[in-house]
Amino acid sequence: VEDPRRPKLAGWGNEGDGLPADGRETLLRTLRAAFPDAPLRRAEPPRRVELPAPRVDSPHGLVEILRADPRERAVHALGKGYPDLVRAFRGEFPHAPDHVAYPADEADVARLLDWAAAERVAIVPFGGGSSVVGGVEPDVGDGYRAAVSLDLARLGRVLEVDEVSRAARVQAGTRGPSLERQLAAHGLTFRHYPQSFEHSTVGGWIATRSGGHFATGRTHVDEFVEGLRVVTARGPVETRRLPASGAGPDANRLFCGSEGALGVIVDAWLRVQKRPERRAAAAAAFPTFLAGAEGVRRIVQAGLQPAACRLLDPVEALTSGSGDGSAAVLVLGFEASGFDPAPLLADALGLAGGSRLEREAGGRWREAFLRLPYVYEEIVAHGLLTGTFETAVTWSRFPSLHGDVSRTLADAAPDAIVSCRLAYAYPDGPAPYYTVVAPARAGAELEQWRDLKAAASEALLAGGGTITHHHAVGREHRSWYEREAPPLVLDALRAAKRELDPAGVLNPGVLL
Amino acid sequence: VEDPRRPKLAGWGNEGDGLPADGRETLLRTLRAAFPDAPLRRAEPPRRVELPAPRVDSPHGLVEILRADPRERAVHALGKGYPDLVRAFRGEFPHAPDHVAYPADEADVARLLDWAAAERVAIVPFGGGSSVVGGVEPDVGDGYRAAVSLDLARLGRVLEVDEVSRAARVQAGTRGPSLERQLAAHGLTFRHYPQSFEHSTVGGWIATRSGGHFATGRTHVDEFVEGLRVVTARGPVETRRLPASGAGPDANRLFCGSEGALGVIVDAWLRVQKRPERRAAAAAAFPTFLAGAEGVRRIVQAGLQPAACRLLDPVEALTSGSGDGSAAVLVLGFEASGFDPAPLLADALGLAGGSRLEREAGGRWREAFLRLPYVYEEIVAHGLLTGTFETAVTWSRFPSLHGDVSRTLADAAPDAIVSCRLAYAYPDGPAPYYTVVAPARAGAELEQWRDLKAAASEALLAGGGTITHHHAVGREHRSWYEREAPPLVLDALRAAKRELDPAGVLNPGVLL
Repeated sequence: VEDPRRPKLAGWGNEGDGLPADGRETLLRTLRAAFPDAPLRRAEPPRRVELPAPRVDSPHGLVEILRADPRERAVHALGKGYPDLVRAFRGEFPHAPDHVAYPADEADVARLLDWAAAERVAIVPFGGGSSVVGGVEPDVGDGYRAAVSLDLARLGRVLEVDEVSRAARVQAGTRGPSLERQLAAHGLTFRHYPQSFEHSTVGGWIATRSGGHFATGRTHVDEFVEGLRVVTARGPVETRRLPASGAGPDANRLFCGSEGALGVIVDAWLRVQKRPERRAAAAAAFPTFLAGAEGVRRIVQAGLQPAACRLLDPVEALTSGSGDGSAAVLVLGFEASGFDPAPLLADALGLAGGSRLEREAGGRWREAFLRLPYVYEEIVAHGLLTGTFETAVTWSRFPSLHGDVSRTLADAAPDAIVSCRLAYAYPDGPAPYYTVVAPARAGAELEQWRDLKAAASEALLAGGGTITHHHAVGREHRSWYEREAPPLVLDALRAAKRELDPAGVLNPGVLL
Repeated sequence: VEDPRRPKLAGWGNEGDGLPADGRETLLRTLRAAFPDAPLRRAEPPRRVELPAPRVDSPHGLVEILRADPRERAVHALGKGYPDLVRAFRGEFPHAPDHVAYPADEADVARLLDWAAAERVAIVPFGGGSSVVGGVEPDVGDGYRAAVSLDLARLGRVLEVDEVSRAARVQAGTRGPSLERQLAAHGLTFRHYPQSFEHSTVGGWIATRSGGHFATGRTHVDEFVEGLRVVTARGPVETRRLPASGAGPDANRLFCGSEGALGVIVDAWLRVQKRPERRAAAAAAFPTFLAGAEGVRRIVQAGLQPAACRLLDPVEALTSGSGDGSAAVLVLGFEASGFDPAPLLADALGLAGGSRLEREAGGRWREAFLRLPYVYEEIVAHGLLTGTFETAVTWSRFPSLHGDVSRTLADAAPDAIVSCRLAYAYPDGPAPYYTVVAPARAGAELEQWRDLKAAASEALLAGGGTITHHHAVGREHRSWYEREAPPLVLDALRAAKRELDPAGVLNPGVLL
């Protein structure tokens, strides 16, 4: 009997969780129609895991928080990107941590880091394990005696709520649904819904600069961090709770996006809000994706900040159930408390142009969006390749980047279905998000993926984009990040890391 | 005959500029009424400047860009805070730079930094020289052979405009009015109006995290930096133009607020916009400042982002001509292009409460606001002390901080007129701004100022605020900044500085 609370060895979420039977059927029918030559046999997850014995013993003082059970180690060996799922279904866990640590409090984290620095053991912070860029895979190189995955699951509480300032102090290991449940008791919400929401954490969001609920304006989690507490290898860092400051370079921003390389985020003061009372949503169709993009540009350049502003290309409109595949669909939504957002919606629709769709296409979008990781699991389990590539780029460069990336993906995966949406939009440019599904080359899936990833990443960088708008750098994006970031900025970050992590034991291999 | 384009030795702006005669008369009448015992005799600026000879000679390759004229050096010796004006009127320029450099291009900046590092000469970047925190005063300690003020005045052009993405590449030495003139040729505007607007620069704004036009939402200039080019002592840094990114800690944010200590910003891609076509503005009165603050809190916590949202206490309402001194006044304004902002204004007024004022109190506010530095010049010239103290703090802490700061200022300067406004407001807290005018102790002005500054700063920090929301750290705020910022973050910044400025010649004494 499977333990329903136990994370799957291969796939998304816990054992027992997944698409409902009818959803699985529908998906399979779609895949059969799209890929008639693919065998589409479902792979079984591995039944058991065998791993080499841990290379170091649990030290006396840490026995209570360290576990070396092979299944536990395997679950912490991989993230949730395509190459992770492929290897997990194969039962390959090449960089499984030697131990998994479950600190009960900040003091445990500090003791763990002290031991790691003294013993040259790499520490890989682990929130929900949803990284798609190798951020939690303990692939730390040969310079370490061992690697420990530091799982923050036991730090899962909302510690304080300041209802006047609309802020809450939250432990880093708190997952999305638990955060919302705890805040709901105060009539508050964080409204941060990355696709990984169900199995990602506050600390992980901050460490990776996660993209959230709001499609415009305050998109990244960075904007909602009022203060931070981080345990570094040299001691704790606590930034002051402030709505804003002009005192020196922003200290919080040093840790937003630090991906565990500078320290372990243990808790954060987050800017929360009242659950919005009113919502105004609508959808509009455009003959082409680029025509829709012009509509989005007009909206954001007028200064409007819709909460939802998602432009789906015809393929994505079809597969998400928002359109019939003949047109691009823009899903718009404003939300508010204390005033009526309907006039703003009317303004945005007027600026965007396009033809208004009767049905409000955006209604069930979030639910479907959060279920997508289960869809990806099924797709991979059935022997297909799937991946996402995302960036942000200025409006002036967007059309040519979009053309180049689309062509690149079509060339690299001729049998693929490629779709795109604008996931976020800013006054100076959009954040396009590409999804690819293709028949996989059995046995050579990782090589096929690597080639596709490299081709797409080259096109993103060449087109003036960033290597990632909200998936972070991890280990997968590092070589492109090193080309995107100014060399002297990387030197400065390395110097900061040497200062905070002199032994270099914190998530070696990510970012720097 | 005074050269009208020549900066004053003492006071704000250029010789020949100042309050019109009637404005000066009105101000004097007000001051006489408020401080009947003060002599109010206007001090004359010094007629000539004598300074010791430069401690180093201009090297061969830099002769063309270095000047050692005493007046030039004196103008670059001080900022524009109270102790600066006092010393300038006295003719005291204790830390005048040995030379003033006027690089014509980035290559000049690089050559200057090479020479400085080799010869152990401190380089103090100088934009418009409007610092009120000692940021441009070459008080660099004894570890240097000499100090050079690096004036970016010759880098004053808008180099490129991307009208599609609404972005412009602007040289760092471009002053506010020149920036707006150059952008207006493209129908664009930056809309960043710090009080120093007339005599401050794009590079200075970024280096000090200047606060701009928007009272809510995107307040600091940081939000409008799309990309940066910085000359460090080890070479240039250029960040990629991006609307957003999630790749590592934000590189632009490392230089926003770096105050010249990491490198010299030479140009930046700024997010600009169309001149707003429509504006909706109104004012409301509240019985007390704290009641008005509750109204502001309701507005921003509902998610509304008025461009203007300035709450003036009764004194400030009176002195700014926005009220009769019996009530606090909230000045609200929304601006938009392509849609009508009037419904948003109605929503905001409804949420705020208070009683609507007939007259739109905000109409001439900006003009008066930008003239205030000339008012301060007159006040100081007439032997009065004036200073401003500003912070940001959470809403829950604001009432007690406000009480403590008000009491502290009243205790430290019993004869003073103290006023406060909320200059900026965020969902989790406001940025209060205090202005003090008091009779000065003739001959002991600097000591009087230091005591007042220390008392106010202690109260800000003790109340949970930041030492500065938008005046930067410079040299004046350093000891409080060192208590506000986490020690390990300071260590990390110092490590970054050692990396980018190994000889430690860049603006020594600020920040770190």
